[in-house]
Amino acid sequence: MIKPKRLLSLLLRFIAFGATLAAVILMATSHEKGTFFAVSYEAKYTDTPAFKYFVIANAIVTVYGFLVLFLPPGSPIWRLVLALDLVFIMLLISSISAAMAIAQVGKNGNPRAAWLPVCDQVTKFCNQVTGALVAGFIALITYIILLLHSIYNFLNPLFEKA
Amino acid sequence: MIKPKRLLSLLLRFIAFGATLAAVILMATSHEKGTFFAVSYEAKYTDTPAFKYFVIANAIVTVYGFLVLFLPPGSPIWRLVLALDLVFIMLLISSISAAMAIAQVGKNGNPRAAWLPVCDQVTKFCNQVTGALVAGFIALITYIILLLHSIYNFLNPLFEKA
Repeated sequence: MIKPKRLLSLLLRFIAFGATLAAVILMATSHEKGTFFAVSYEAKYTDTPAFKYFVIANAIVTVYGFLVLFLPPGSPIWRLVLALDLVFIMLLISSISAAMAIAQVGKNGNPRAAWLPVCDQVTKFCNQVTGALVAGFIALITYIILLLHSIYNFLNPLFEKA
Repeated sequence: MIKPKRLLSLLLRFIAFGATLAAVILMATSHEKGTFFAVSYEAKYTDTPAFKYFVIANAIVTVYGFLVLFLPPGSPIWRLVLALDLVFIMLLISSISAAMAIAQVGKNGNPRAAWLPVCDQVTKFCNQVTGALVAGFIALITYIILLLHSIYNFLNPLFEKA
């Protein structure tokens, strides 16, 4: 029988996996035709390096999250998972921050640099990018909870022995 | 007498402190008057939320880095420093990623969103922002080395006892 603690950890890992997968799908399928000063164009995530980085980073974390789901409990690889969780948390933070910085310009523009906001023209695109960012955030918070839980589990027996 | 290991750690902390301080100064003093389609304007870091975030984040880490320099060796607070190092590494990653995403648009523009590159008009401004980002990177790498070193020092006696 699976222990409740192990079940909770597995549930959190499933949420994290689902959230990164949702982030990838939402961002990768976000495109919309808009018109801008009578010029029609298609907004796509591939136009923006920060969004491409977001998709790649979240895809990597999705694959990792999927593989970890099948790791048997008590495996010595779990110690490596602690370190990998930390590395992938940093990757998520970096990709979310970069994508958010661009999304903010998309929404509010940057008057000094004459970068106009585009979200009024491509509302659906912007909503989908926002959704992807929210999903990324959920994944990030879930991985941070998992990391804190792993650190506690890892240190506790060491302190008890010491 | 100070041990060589402690001296190296102190040196790294001094480099990290200096690098974040340099990042703050470079970004905060970056401003340049430019003309854009015959309209003159002044490029300043305060126009871009991502750059403001970069300055605030690096200023916080600078204050932290300064305080840690005066922490006596063997103090129990060093265990807290390990956790704080990790938190501030995440803050640095986030602020550098956001600022880099914007700097990339400043340099190359985003043709689809009709965001034109501005670095040809305000070269000095862009160079200073680049300098700030490089300084931020140096700080980040130094803090990661310090974190790995702290983790090793923290775990080693625990494993020896276990």
